Amino acid sequence: MSQVLRPAAQALRWTDLFADRTLRMTSSAIREFLKLTSDPELISFAGGLPAPEVFPLPEIEYALTRVLGEHGAEALQYGATEGYLPLRQLLVRHMDRYGIQVTMDNVLITSGAQQALDLIGKLLLNPGDIVVSEAPTYLGALQAFSAYQPEFLSVPVDEEGLRLDRLEELLSLGPKFLYVLPNFQNPTGVTLSLARRRKLVELSAHYHTPIVEDDPYGQLRYEGEHLPSLVQLDAELHGCASGEAFRGAVLYLGTFSKTLAPGLRLGWVVAPAQVIGKLVQLKQGADLHTSTFTQMLAYEVARGGFLDEHVRLIRSVYGERRDAMLRAMETHFPSTVQWTRPQGGLFLWVTLPPGLDSTALLKDALEQKVAFVPGTPFYPSGGGARTLRLNFSYCTPERIEEGIARLGAVLRRLSATAQGASASATGRRAG
Amino acid sequence: MSQVLRPAAQALRWTDLFADRTLRMTSSAIREFLKLTSDPELISFAGGLPAPEVFPLPEIEYALTRVLGEHGAEALQYGATEGYLPLRQLLVRHMDRYGIQVTMDNVLITSGAQQALDLIGKLLLNPGDIVVSEAPTYLGALQAFSAYQPEFLSVPVDEEGLRLDRLEELLSLGPKFLYVLPNFQNPTGVTLSLARRRKLVELSAHYHTPIVEDDPYGQLRYEGEHLPSLVQLDAELHGCASGEAFRGAVLYLGTFSKTLAPGLRLGWVVAPAQVIGKLVQLKQGADLHTSTFTQMLAYEVARGGFLDEHVRLIRSVYGERRDAMLRAMETHFPSTVQWTRPQGGLFLWVTLPPGLDSTALLKDALEQKVAFVPGTPFYPSGGGARTLRLNFSYCTPERIEEGIARLGAVLRRLSATAQGASASATGRRAG
Repeated sequence: MSQVLRPAAQALRWTDLFADRTLRMTSSAIREFLKLTSDPELISFAGGLPAPEVFPLPEIEYALTRVLGEHGAEALQYGATEGYLPLRQLLVRHMDRYGIQVTMDNVLITSGAQQALDLIGKLLLNPGDIVVSEAPTYLGALQAFSAYQPEFLSVPVDEEGLRLDRLEELLSLGPKFLYVLPNFQNPTGVTLSLARRRKLVELSAHYHTPIVEDDPYGQLRYEGEHLPSLVQLDAELHGCASGEAFRGAVLYLGTFSKTLAPGLRLGWVVAPAQVIGKLVQLKQGADLHTSTFTQMLAYEVARGGFLDEHVRLIRSVYGERRDAMLRAMETHFPSTVQWTRPQGGLFLWVTLPPGLDSTALLKDALEQKVAFVPGTPFYPSGGGARTLRLNFSYCTPERIEEGIARLGAVLRRLSATAQGASASATGRRAG
Repeated sequence: MSQVLRPAAQALRWTDLFADRTLRMTSSAIREFLKLTSDPELISFAGGLPAPEVFPLPEIEYALTRVLGEHGAEALQYGATEGYLPLRQLLVRHMDRYGIQVTMDNVLITSGAQQALDLIGKLLLNPGDIVVSEAPTYLGALQAFSAYQPEFLSVPVDEEGLRLDRLEELLSLGPKFLYVLPNFQNPTGVTLSLARRRKLVELSAHYHTPIVEDDPYGQLRYEGEHLPSLVQLDAELHGCASGEAFRGAVLYLGTFSKTLAPGLRLGWVVAPAQVIGKLVQLKQGADLHTSTFTQMLAYEVARGGFLDEHVRLIRSVYGERRDAMLRAMETHFPSTVQWTRPQGGLFLWVTLPPGLDSTALLKDALEQKVAFVPGTPFYPSGGGARTLRLNFSYCTPERIEEGIARLGAVLRRLSATAQGASASATGRRAG
C-alpha cells in the first residue's frame, strides 16, 4: 500500500458501467420537443402543458402567507414519507366524493403521479415480467417501468378505449399488471366505456391481474357524464362495503398537476394498505418524502373547496380550446385525415392517410413553426407512423386556429404530393 | 367473452407479487423513531433534523414574493428535467469556489440528495453487483441502493475515516462503485483525512472503481480547515485543467437540506456529462423533474450570496450544540463509554462498553423520554450492537444537557448492573 498507485492504462469508461434501464426508443421525443417551446413564434401542440393563464396565482399567494405564517418551520422541515397528514385526509374525502371509500392508510403522496409509476414498477417488476398496456399509451409510464426491465405487451385502442377482445389472451400469459388510462387517455383522448370498465375489472379479478389506473385528467370532462373509476368498480366487485378495509386489485393514481399546477410535483396513490406500506418503504429510499412545503401549499389552496370552483374554470377554458381545435381541423385539414373527438383531457389523436408519415410531417411543420408529437414513441412495440398527438390546453383559441391552419396547409401540400406520387406510380404500373 | 367471468376462488395476494427490493433489515429504524418526535416531552437525538430556529423565514418570504411576482406562471409550470437553469448556473459557481471546475452539463438538480442516490443505483446497479461502503454508513443510501439488489461489502471506519488497508482487497473484487461520506460522516461524525483522500482517488483510478461522494455536511465545519473533496482531488489526478471538460471517476452529491431547508427537497449531482445525460433520462422516468417552484425559491434565496452568511449562522448554532453535547457527555456518561468528537456535521457516535447493548439501552432511555438511533441498522452486514448515533443539531443546548443527563443516568445504572452481573459471573467461575 505504500507505493504510489498509477491509474490503469485505460481511463474509466462510464458507458461500460451502465445498467440497461432506459427506454430503447428515441430516448425522449417529448422532452426534445418541449425544448422547442422556448421559441415564442412556435405554436406548440407538442407538450402536455396546462394553460398558464389558469394558474390560480392569487389563491396560491394567499395560501403561502398561511403556510409561512402559521406553519413555517414545519413546512421547511423533513416530513413523513407517507405525506402531509391533512393533505392525505383531504384526499380521502376527495376520493369519497367519487365513490371510493378509503382511509389514510390507503393514500401515499408522491412527487407527481410520475413518481407513483416509478414506485409501482419498483414494487412489482422483476426483469422479464410482462406489463400489459394500451397501444398507444403514456410515454412516461413506459419510461418509468423500463427502469425495471419488463417486457411490454399491448392491446389496441378504439373509440371506446382499450379493446377487450385482444386483452384476455394477454392476461392469460400472467402479466404482473395492466396499465390503463381510462379517462381521456394520453395520447389518444379516448375514454373507456362503462361496459368495458365493468368487464375489465371482471377480467382482472378472474386472471388475478392488478390494474394500475392512471387518472390525471378524470376531472377535466367537457361533455358527457362522469364514469365510475376502475378502482370503484373493482371495490364493488370485491364487495367492499362502507367501513370495511379497502382492498382489491386496482392501484389508482391521481395528481394535482392538471387541477392546480404541475410545477408543484404533487400526485398520490390509492391502494390497499399493505401495498401502500411497501410503497412507503420504496419512496423513502427514492426521495425520503415529497416537499413538505409544496404539500402544505396545496393543502392550504385546496382545503376550503377552492379546487372545485377552479376545476370549473379549467373545464370551461380547455373545453373552448378543444372546440377551437376541432373546428379548425374541420376547416383546414384534408378530408383524408382522421382524428378523435375527446370528451375531456388535454389531447386529441390524428391518423394520416396512407402514404403520409407523421415524422416527415413534423419536419415540414416545424418550418412553418408548428409542433406536435409524432405517434411512434407512444407505441410500446413500434408502429403508429401515420399517427400524431395534438395538445389543445396550452395555446389560446387564436393560436390554435392559426397553428391548425398552418398544419393544414402543410398536410394539403403533402397529401397532394403523395397522391401525385401514387397516381404517377399507378400510371407507371398501368403504363 | 360474453359470459360473466367470476373472480378466481382465491383473492389476489399482493404479497406474492412484490419484487424483493427493500432492505432486509428492520425496515426503517430511523423512520419509526422519527414518529416518536411528536411527543413534546421527548428529547430526541434520533433524527437528522436541522434546527428549525435557523430556517431563514424572512428571506424565504421575500424570495417567494419575487418568485410569484416575477415568474409565477413559470414557477407553477412543468420544467426541464435537468433543473432550473439559473439554479444550475449558481451551483456551477458554487462548485468553482470549492475548486471543482464544471459546466452546466455536469449538474443535475434532484429531489434531495436522496434521489441522487436512487438514480445512481438505478444507473449503475444490476442485481448481484458489489457496492462497497463504509461500516457504519448512511442508512438511506443502503435503502436506495437495495432497490437494485446489489451485494454490500464494507470497510470499517476509524477516527480518520474509512480504513484503506481493508479497502484494496474489496476493490480488487470489481465493485460497481464505492459509496463514501468524507465530511463528518453520517452516522459517526468522522472526517476522512487528507492523506487518505489522496490515496482513495489513486486507488479508485487504479482499480477503475467509481466513487459516489456524498457531501451533505461539507459546509458545516465548526473547527479545523476545509479539506479538498474527492471530486476535486480526482479531477486533479486526471489532469482536468481549467476549461477542459470535467471527467473522472467521482459522482459528487450536494444538498440544500442542511444549508437552507430539507422540506424543499433539493439536492444536486455533479458528474461527467455522459453520466448526467443518463441520469436525466432516469430522472425523467422517476419524477419528470424536481418542483420548479422550490427550485426557483431556492435560487431567489441563494442568488445574492445570502447562504454564505446563513451558513455562518448555522455553524455557530450547531457548533455550540455540539460543544454542549460533548460537555454534557463528559459530565454525565460513565468513563467506560467512548464517543467521537466531530469537527462538523450533525452527529456523533457512541460506543458502549462490553456487556451493554444499544437497543436495550434505547428501551430504558425512552422511558426517560430520550431517543437516539441504535447503531446496528447503519451496518450493511450486521454488527454494531454496542454503538449508537446522537444528533446534536436539533435540540437547544439546554435540552441537550437535560437529555444527556437522563441518558447518562440510564447508562450508569445499566453499567452498574452489567458490572454486577459480570462480577457475580466471575465470582461463580472462581467459586
